[in-house]
Amino acid sequence: MSGTLYGLGVGPGDPELITLKAHRILKACPVVAYPAPDDGESFARSIVSEYLDPSQTEIPIVIPMRVERFPAARIYDEKADEIAGHLKAGRDVCVLCEGDPFFYGSFMYVFERLSGEFDCQIVPGISSLMASAAALQRPLAARNDVLTICPAPLDDGTLLERFSSGDAIAVIKIGRHFARIRRLIDEAGLMARAGYLERVSLDEQKIMPLARVPDDKAPYFSMILIYKGAEDWIGNLEMPVEGMTG
Amino acid sequence: MSGTLYGLGVGPGDPELITLKAHRILKACPVVAYPAPDDGESFARSIVSEYLDPSQTEIPIVIPMRVERFPAARIYDEKADEIAGHLKAGRDVCVLCEGDPFFYGSFMYVFERLSGEFDCQIVPGISSLMASAAALQRPLAARNDVLTICPAPLDDGTLLERFSSGDAIAVIKIGRHFARIRRLIDEAGLMARAGYLERVSLDEQKIMPLARVPDDKAPYFSMILIYKGAEDWIGNLEMPVEGMTG
Repeated sequence: MSGTLYGLGVGPGDPELITLKAHRILKACPVVAYPAPDDGESFARSIVSEYLDPSQTEIPIVIPMRVERFPAARIYDEKADEIAGHLKAGRDVCVLCEGDPFFYGSFMYVFERLSGEFDCQIVPGISSLMASAAALQRPLAARNDVLTICPAPLDDGTLLERFSSGDAIAVIKIGRHFARIRRLIDEAGLMARAGYLERVSLDEQKIMPLARVPDDKAPYFSMILIYKGAEDWIGNLEMPVEGMTG
Repeated sequence: MSGTLYGLGVGPGDPELITLKAHRILKACPVVAYPAPDDGESFARSIVSEYLDPSQTEIPIVIPMRVERFPAARIYDEKADEIAGHLKAGRDVCVLCEGDPFFYGSFMYVFERLSGEFDCQIVPGISSLMASAAALQRPLAARNDVLTICPAPLDDGTLLERFSSGDAIAVIKIGRHFARIRRLIDEAGLMARAGYLERVSLDEQKIMPLARVPDDKAPYFSMILIYKGAEDWIGNLEMPVEGMTG
């Protein structure tokens, strides 16, 4: 009998922000796969490293940061084959996913290659979206607010249109798009209502008004939250939040 | 020294879908508050009932299902005073929140009354949004999709406008708005791309194409997910999903 493939949400960064279910499955799986950069540590693995056991087989899925689509697809093909080998041999495999597996996660690339052939279970995780609102100490959305989630790589026109509708906006996948996104938010007249968050729930967490971010760049694991109804609280962001650097 | 007020996300329903952090804090708090209906059990409390201890003081926050704004505000005022009494006496208090405390949660009504005076920490929880995508076995949003979250009580015009933009749409807080929402989704030409989910992650979970929901009503804890890019998978929703009744 084949093993089960688990898409395991490991949350935003704090090892305590994984679910009891993810923790149990992680400890029970003989094979653990995770995305990894071509230099440095896997963020997903680092979140749960204290729960791993040396007896577990690890499969890093190394995707170079800047690649064309074709090589990335080939890497996923190869790693899916490797995972399939374990599943066919009856071994359960969990794939670690930062945040939630199905909220803009890379797990879909493994899922789409293997879910047709193998039993697959998704264990949802705490998204950085919810962790960011918790860190800001401000509801993400309430009552009848419309909340819109916008990936930063979208073009200027689409982003400006989305910024103009809805009550609360989260901009994700910022990274190298930071300077452009900040300019667009300014253009939309929303700078005073935008908060910037980086590495939320970790010791090195940074939270500050977007207007006060000193650099013109941001890491991939950063987020901008725009609260259209907000008045002057963004400017006071230092006050209630620990780990603030702005 | 005053106690700390915790807003504790307890997830979508499965007791295993709470975080290690929420589990630890819940067990350590001498006082546990939670929203409750005026008849029947508190859903938030039922999720974590196995982790509670008889020595903990419980504070149900009973909000009648159909009340004017004023009495609800008065109830929150009274319960906030009761919680404040415990905090002033140095006792930590956790307030249980279905899903995530700051994602359309009622915790904000307690938070806005007490966070100015007391130390407050928010522990994010698994939202039913992520749990629904996990149950559907379909990414909620991927790559550069725009995801829009729409509360069902919004008026027809606003909802139709939101349905027409964005790539994926989640309609929440459905309850008595179900028949109207289904008609609007049909009007927008999106019926074949809409999935209906109820009581996700619990044994009584129901998942089916929206078109096949037999009744013209739905519970409050239900959700509709619209995947605009979906082709024919919604119609095949029975196949891969356990607990399906449609």
